[in-house]
Amino acid sequence: MVLPESKDLTHLFSEETNARKPSPLKTCIHLFNDPNIIFLGGGLPMSDYFPWDNLTVDSPLPPFTKGIGAPIDPATNDVLKADLKKNEKLDEGDIPFARALQYGFSAGQPELLKFLREHTTIIHDLQYQDWDVVATTGNTNSWESTLRVFCNKGDVILAEAYSFSSSLAAAQAQGVITFPVPIDEHGIIPSKLANILDNWTPGAPKPKLLYTIPTGQNPTGSSLSDDRKEEIYKIAQKHDFIIIEDEPYYFLQVGKYIKDLKERSNVETEVKPSHEEFLKSLAKTFLSLDTEGRVIRMDSFSKVLAPGSRLGWITGSKRLLKAYVALHEMTIQAPAGFTQALVSSTLNKWGQSGYIDWLICLRHEYLLKRNHAIDALFKYIPESPVFTINPPIAGMFFTVNIDASAHPEFASKFHSDPLKVEQHIYETVVKNGVLVVPGIWFIADGETSPAQPKDSKEVSNPNIIFFRGTYAAVSPEKLDAGLKRLADVLKQEFGFN
Amino acid sequence: MVLPESKDLTHLFSEETNARKPSPLKTCIHLFNDPNIIFLGGGLPMSDYFPWDNLTVDSPLPPFTKGIGAPIDPATNDVLKADLKKNEKLDEGDIPFARALQYGFSAGQPELLKFLREHTTIIHDLQYQDWDVVATTGNTNSWESTLRVFCNKGDVILAEAYSFSSSLAAAQAQGVITFPVPIDEHGIIPSKLANILDNWTPGAPKPKLLYTIPTGQNPTGSSLSDDRKEEIYKIAQKHDFIIIEDEPYYFLQVGKYIKDLKERSNVETEVKPSHEEFLKSLAKTFLSLDTEGRVIRMDSFSKVLAPGSRLGWITGSKRLLKAYVALHEMTIQAPAGFTQALVSSTLNKWGQSGYIDWLICLRHEYLLKRNHAIDALFKYIPESPVFTINPPIAGMFFTVNIDASAHPEFASKFHSDPLKVEQHIYETVVKNGVLVVPGIWFIADGETSPAQPKDSKEVSNPNIIFFRGTYAAVSPEKLDAGLKRLADVLKQEFGFN
Repeated sequence: MVLPESKDLTHLFSEETNARKPSPLKTCIHLFNDPNIIFLGGGLPMSDYFPWDNLTVDSPLPPFTKGIGAPIDPATNDVLKADLKKNEKLDEGDIPFARALQYGFSAGQPELLKFLREHTTIIHDLQYQDWDVVATTGNTNSWESTLRVFCNKGDVILAEAYSFSSSLAAAQAQGVITFPVPIDEHGIIPSKLANILDNWTPGAPKPKLLYTIPTGQNPTGSSLSDDRKEEIYKIAQKHDFIIIEDEPYYFLQVGKYIKDLKERSNVETEVKPSHEEFLKSLAKTFLSLDTEGRVIRMDSFSKVLAPGSRLGWITGSKRLLKAYVALHEMTIQAPAGFTQALVSSTLNKWGQSGYIDWLICLRHEYLLKRNHAIDALFKYIPESPVFTINPPIAGMFFTVNIDASAHPEFASKFHSDPLKVEQHIYETVVKNGVLVVPGIWFIADGETSPAQPKDSKEVSNPNIIFFRGTYAAVSPEKLDAGLKRLADVLKQEFGFN
Repeated sequence: MVLPESKDLTHLFSEETNARKPSPLKTCIHLFNDPNIIFLGGGLPMSDYFPWDNLTVDSPLPPFTKGIGAPIDPATNDVLKADLKKNEKLDEGDIPFARALQYGFSAGQPELLKFLREHTTIIHDLQYQDWDVVATTGNTNSWESTLRVFCNKGDVILAEAYSFSSSLAAAQAQGVITFPVPIDEHGIIPSKLANILDNWTPGAPKPKLLYTIPTGQNPTGSSLSDDRKEEIYKIAQKHDFIIIEDEPYYFLQVGKYIKDLKERSNVETEVKPSHEEFLKSLAKTFLSLDTEGRVIRMDSFSKVLAPGSRLGWITGSKRLLKAYVALHEMTIQAPAGFTQALVSSTLNKWGQSGYIDWLICLRHEYLLKRNHAIDALFKYIPESPVFTINPPIAGMFFTVNIDASAHPEFASKFHSDPLKVEQHIYETVVKNGVLVVPGIWFIADGETSPAQPKDSKEVSNPNIIFFRGTYAAVSPEKLDAGLKRLADVLKQEFGFN
């Protein structure tokens, strides 16, 4: 079957993107490799002067039988040594330093991009022809670039009603309005989204983008179900906006929480899934549904390898990616050469199959962490309609919902304001030695001018507040102790002692 | 002597900077290291899962007696091996991977910043108290951040009449007007700058920034003399703008070109200068003159170590740097951890003294390159008032000025338009196998509304065109052959055969 070409969505570009002239220096860069031309055009230092050679690093060896957290001990057979040279390639996926540390390849080094394209094909099976990937310095960079590529001051974007605060803040500082879309425990509610757009106030600028974190959403921990993605994609087509799929937690899909320990032990000790089973178990992505290049997917190595790698990539139609590369030539130039060389070398030595092994093992670690956290929450927090524990099926975050109106002093002390209860509980848990984050820090509350109908922002129960915690960063013992402190405060405050 | 504090120049910030709210998540980050708090606040993966350890790399050993271009051969004694661990520091300047590859330290890792602060003190001897440095991903990033920190759409900045095209393009895409300042062979002409500002058209927005490349300017190759810097600084104080000192070529100060070979051989073979002599020989910087935090200096490792390191730093007042860090938390987060770890380790092992050795040797390489290029130009290009060879005293670039009106077909074929001659010569040199870049690619030609007086942009002879070449990137043989091809075209075109 011949796949279709992407649609031209460049009418959604920002004024800045449209004003960005191709640098005249780039018009002659193709002559750099012309053997008939002596190129005195660019200020490239000679690689002879780069003061590094013979870089070696140890990484664990697939299939990571001792687990991904095991120390990397070169005395064992479980270690793979990368050996990177300035002027030669010892291995197919290596990037010689003379190139990795030179200018050029704004979209990323070929060896790395090749791996990422293959990986993308395995995971998403794209439905149109002219897609590609561009390397970035991580999703913070990818999102900021996205805002610059598409949005003018005063433009509107849609976001989950609670979303990653730094992403919202980046938009707001640029004067972009972040309009909230109602969510429930399965993420964005398509009917509500359709309702917002079908009743969009005439004269208000229509949204250009939907910013969403479909898997293990930050902060709610929810995951958008596959059928909702299809509905949302259709709404995007109808109302001509682009879906920005921010997916740092995509591979942390740990599945449903099973409270019953016997039942669970079957799952936890079960043989490692085959690659096929693993791939089948993953959520459908917006990217895989996309037939017209209406989705920009942002992937990151931050949660999968290491945040300080400052490496991620964007997948989308070549038409749209062009604008990112032109912007990056004036911002990041390209991800750091050391990072590209080390990650490319490691991944290419692991191979696509070894990388899937890594992802399977990583997911298993987060499964144990998630279970440990939710077990502790159920153990310490009293069973009551006041508290709702939301076990996530993916990601790093859990939330606890609280009915603030159940606080004994809700009216008397807090003047029936749930946010005052939230702030009070936040301060009290910190005083008691645990930090969880109040939901209000993540609220998307932009409004257009003229404003949207009031019911667009309706919430079912305005007295429900929530706190976000993570099980990513600490040991099981600390996690347990922290959650007990949280529960003790909640019991104390809501009179459960 | 007690140094003064910087002046508050935050009134020059952009709307975006003023709108940027501190992320609420940052308000609790100090609790991360509080031993009494169990921090379930941030989605930080455990460093156990970072798949790298035992990174080693060879670098040359100070004082680099074999020259900085010698192969790095671990079999010799001239090699220094860095050995970086995930969880320990073998050396003072090392950054353990568990930290380098984690989130945090948006302004840069402490070990790297310490080295950069010490280096800055050695080179610039700052005249006010509250300065600091912030690590960036190179000067492309530093400049783009500078534009975002200070400029709104419609704002005006000043730039050398010919300046680095990518820097100009970054400003222009943001809707910032790049107003040209007349230059001669010593850079910006202070009297002309004063004249522009003293006669600034009422109603036009006044310039917020002066963007300048003082040393080995790109594209002209000129260097701004020390006394001019003092004059320009006073103008900046009078007219309340900030000086952005973009200095990637600062350490390539090769000194005056000496045509006479005998006289020169004394200089070239002269004993290596002492560190004191070297430091004394360097141009005074805007940063060293600055008594009130009115200078933002952008330094880069791109020309000194390697472009692909994607590492540089900004020096300025803490008041202004705060806005950069807040922006970077939403863009780059921080330079890549591998880069910071490797550069910090290398530089700290070399020490401040070893790094000065490196810079001395690097400068020597560029001295030879500069001399070779200028020798060839004088050899091949006929002595005539039509052609002016401009030997640079710093940097990577030389220019050849041409009086376009001397072209035999200036009136008949080119309608007395010097730019038509320029384009024709460009096309002809490329056809003849050498690429040099036409001056027009670098022109800063922004205009305010209402416009500035006509004489602001007056040039002494509008028929003078120029081409930029570089001696950085190619071997002496290729350079020689390329310059001969260029000269042959010029001779042919201007009837010198």
